[in-house]
This record gives sequence, C-alpha cells and structure tokens, in this order.
Amino acid sequence: MKRSSPDVPLIECVPNFSEARRQDVIDALVSAIAAQPVHVLNVSSDPDHNRTVITFAGEPKPVVAAAFDVIAAAARLIDLTAHTGVHPRIGATDVVPFVPLRGISLEACAALAIRLGERVGMELGLPVYLYEAAARRPERRSLANIRRGGYEVLREDISSPSRTPDFGPLHLGSAGAVVIGARAPLIAFNAFLDTNSLGVARAVAHSIRESGGGLPYLRALGLLVGGAAQVSMNITDFRQTSLFRIMSAVRAAAAHHGAQIVRTELIGLIPQAALLDYAIESLQLPMATRDQVLEQCLGAATGDYRPVLFE
Amino acid sequence: MKRSSPDVPLIECVPNFSEARRQDVIDALVSAIAAQPVHVLNVSSDPDHNRTVITFAGEPKPVVAAAFDVIAAAARLIDLTAHTGVHPRIGATDVVPFVPLRGISLEACAALAIRLGERVGMELGLPVYLYEAAARRPERRSLANIRRGGYEVLREDISSPSRTPDFGPLHLGSAGAVVIGARAPLIAFNAFLDTNSLGVARAVAHSIRESGGGLPYLRALGLLVGGAAQVSMNITDFRQTSLFRIMSAVRAAAAHHGAQIVRTELIGLIPQAALLDYAIESLQLPMATRDQVLEQCLGAATGDYRPVLFE
Repeated sequence: MKRSSPDVPLIECVPNFSEARRQDVIDALVSAIAAQPVHVLNVSSDPDHNRTVITFAGEPKPVVAAAFDVIAAAARLIDLTAHTGVHPRIGATDVVPFVPLRGISLEACAALAIRLGERVGMELGLPVYLYEAAARRPERRSLANIRRGGYEVLREDISSPSRTPDFGPLHLGSAGAVVIGARAPLIAFNAFLDTNSLGVARAVAHSIRESGGGLPYLRALGLLVGGAAQVSMNITDFRQTSLFRIMSAVRAAAAHHGAQIVRTELIGLIPQAALLDYAIESLQLPMATRDQVLEQCLGAATGDYRPVLFE
Repeated sequence: MKRSSPDVPLIECVPNFSEARRQDVIDALVSAIAAQPVHVLNVSSDPDHNRTVITFAGEPKPVVAAAFDVIAAAARLIDLTAHTGVHPRIGATDVVPFVPLRGISLEACAALAIRLGERVGMELGLPVYLYEAAARRPERRSLANIRRGGYEVLREDISSPSRTPDFGPLHLGSAGAVVIGARAPLIAFNAFLDTNSLGVARAVAHSIRESGGGLPYLRALGLLVGGAAQVSMNITDFRQTSLFRIMSAVRAAAAHHGAQIVRTELIGLIPQAALLDYAIESLQLPMATRDQVLEQCLGAATGDYRPVLFE
C-alpha cells in the first residue's frame, strides 16, 4: 500500500453486514474490499448481534468502488430470510456510511453516497435508502426510521409511499435493502450491566438517549445479549456530548435500577480525541491539557506526526 | 525547524528551574534553549512552587548544547539565596533529565548526562550530582536523596563525604548545584483536595507512594499550595503503575480522610499512551481496544502517522 500524501482527500467507509457467525463469509467480504487500493483498518464481528462492522479508508474513488464490490458480495453470500440476531437490520449489507477524514467535506461524501446508491439500485437490483447527510426526505435522515420493523416488516411495506426506496426495485429479496449515506464520525459503544433484566437495559437506554429527553447526540437501545443486559449506544457527535458525560449518565441510570456496569466494548474504531478528552475530563484536568500530550507537541514541532483528525 | 527523519535519534530534556514569578527570566531561559536547533515543546510555570519546567526535544548534540547554555543562563539569572517556594530544590537549574524518545538507549542518554555534568562542573564551576540512570553511587539514583534538606542544608553539608558532588567545586554559590541524569518518561501530576489541611495532604501522599508501602513507581508529597492541600506526584513508570490505579488510590485515600479531589494539573508533557490507557481502563473497555484508535490504525496503514512513542 503506498504512503498517501497529506494533500489527498481521505474518506472512511464503515459498512455493517448481517453476518458474524460464518468466518468464510466475513473473509470473503474483507477480500472484496481489500481487492481495491484501500486500507482495511478494523473488522469487528459480534456473534450475538450476528453483525460485522468493517472499517476501511482511502481516497474517495477506490473507497466507493470497494463499497460497491462488497455490497455485491454480501448480496450473494448473506440470506436475510435465514438471519437471526438481536440488532435491528434490513439488509445483507445493512448500512454504508461514508465519513470525511480530511481534505473533503461532508457534502462531497453525501454526493458519493448518492451516486453509489444509484449504481447499487440499477446494477445490483437492490432497494436503496439514502440517510443522514445524503437523505432526500427529512424523515430519512434517521437510520432508525428507515430500519423500523426490520427486514420482516419492510418486506411487507416496501411498496407503501412512506417506505418507497430512493433507488432500486419496490420489492425485497433475500439480500434485503441497503441504507447508504454520509455522516460525521460515530462511536459505537456498548455497556454490559450486572443484571439479566431486559427491562433494566431498556429503562437505562430510554433515560439516557436523546429521543427519551436524555443526552443530545446519543442513541441507545436496551438489549439482552448472551443473557446479560446490554445498553447499546451510538454517539453521533462526541464533540457535543462527551464520552465522559455519557459514561457518567449510564452509571447513574444503572445505579438508579440497582445495577452496575461490569464491562464495556467498542465496535469498530474511535477517534483518538474522544479517548483523550475522556481521560482529561475524568482525571479532572483542565481541557488545555490537550496541548500537553508529548506526541502531539512533538508532531506539531517536527512535522513527523499528523494532528488528530477530529479536534 | 527542519522536518526530522524517523531514523535520527531523538531525545527529550526536561530541565526544572527555581523561578516562576519573573517572566523576563523565564523568557531568557527559553531563548537560551531555542537558540540551538531544538524544539521547545512546553513551558510550565508554577508560581506557588516558584518553579518552571521546560520540555524540549531534538537530536542529542544540540539538546545537550542547549542544556549547557540554559544551565549557564539560569546560574546568572537566579539567586537561590533569595528564592522561596514550597517545592524541594537545591539549584537555579535544579534537575536536568535526558529521556530517550526513539533511536537511542537510556544508557546512551546517561552517557550524555555524564559528559554534560563534567562540562558544567569544569566550565561553569557549579557542583553537579549525577542521578537515576547516570548515577555513580547507588544512593544517588534517587533524586530525593540528593536534594534532601534543600539548598539551605546542602550549603552546610556539601563538603561531607556523603554529599560530595560528582563534578565541580565543594561549595555552593547563589546558583546552587545541578542534578543531571537520564530516566524514562515521567509524569508530574498534582491533585488538589477540598481541604486546607496539610496533615491530610501528607497522609494521602504517604499512603499512596511507593516509599510508604503504596503503589510502585509512584512518588508523592503532601503540600499546602495557595491555601489548599495538594498531593504532588511523580509517576516514574506509567506502564507499570497506571494513571487509573493512581487516580483511584488518591480518591480512596482522600475519601478516607473525608476529602475529595477538586481538580488536578499536569506539569509538562504526558505520553499519549498514558492518557489512552487511562481512558480504556476507566471506561471498563478491554485493553485490546488500544488497537481500535482510528488515527493509530490509519497511521499504521498509510505511514502518515508515527506510532505512539511509549507503548
């Protein structure tokens, strides 16, 4: 893989696939991506959710080409009619976000998403929904709205006016539909509680999430995973609602139900700034301590390091 | 400043000066360093301690030259007989550690320290003590042993056999003595408690530090700074005793005395890994999450970023 120049635009793509139990399928998906000149940065598979998240990055053209190729591969390899898992989903390739990393705007990423969506609809014959920054209907900015009821409900409702896809056919095959869009970097973070009560997981999720009147830029679901209560979270803007505030809210809400966090997990990648800011807040250091990180100072002085991508 | 090649050895020097209240003196010290082709990364002045820590880095030869020049400047500009401050000190330039950053060993840094010490003794006529990795007597590995009693006691005792300097004269002038050595990266971290009791600060410091039977690789002093109890800490190996363990120990020991941490501060710079590891431990994430930091993954893949210096 060639060393990329700092001036070249760089985007990230984080497709989510409805498969985590068949390693040969996961390998085939990774291979489809890696056949293009892009960097595969992370593969996170969750057997309980039966869901795999692959993070890759590179210049826009090969990243979009890799996204198309892997959507085609997933449609051949994953049968939604046989899929089980606790996470809401509507497609073999369930959702494909593009994220600007540097030298490119969110709007330009949305334009890439729309062109990819058109091609997936036409060439692969899959229904495509455009979401977040690429949405063409306001209610489709929300992924939850598009996925409501999952594959099983969408299969019945796809021809109703409110659920018409943005591209592709008006019927759902075994590969389901694909949601494609552009967004800011997102943190997917799950907390396991020391209880097997789905009710507690749901109550905690409801009280902390934006839609329940909790923290802005936080989505949360209460699930039962492997017999344990899990609060499954997406932080859509960690610069607005910090990981420290979120962790504090989960701890407090869990304590309110007599529960504690026993462990957490991160799905995919996390921007470095989110962890550094968490440490600074939790250590009760002033925010200006950000400027006292050795590698950042040295990088700024010598030009050896690049600054963190998201401040 | 030229962009340095990854193959060139890089060292850090973190001299501590007994002055924080006269900005013109601090400026003169920084200028003496910056006259050499090195990178000044941070200047931390604490008026209560009346102490300034300057962090600079570069190739060994100019870093050692800058260290010599700034020791000479401080000897001209700072009069220890007129110095007040709560922190133990014996010199205008109190301590000069060299830290290997990359492409050089701790032993090679110790050799640089010894040669600098010899030159400071001969050319500047200052008593010099060699410490940590550069120490020539086992009891002088410890900075606390060398500084015991501060400038005032050393002035009387310097000619006694146990306190004979490694280089330079057997008497202490107004610039005091200089402690020079080499060590691993150190974190200087202070916690302020919600009490004005020096006794509580000292009890907390005593219970958490290595010498009191507490955490290994942790030095701690209880001080009264601006009327508030302060636990002043040095972490000499954050890879052995993590910042999370230390923060937890300070919180627990303070709580034992009915006190709480109200804020903390970092003096100088901190290796990035110490903050990332703190975040991961505190968030109850598995340690393998280290490999899920976006910038690190991207840097490893594209060659744009260099890995963190201290794993």
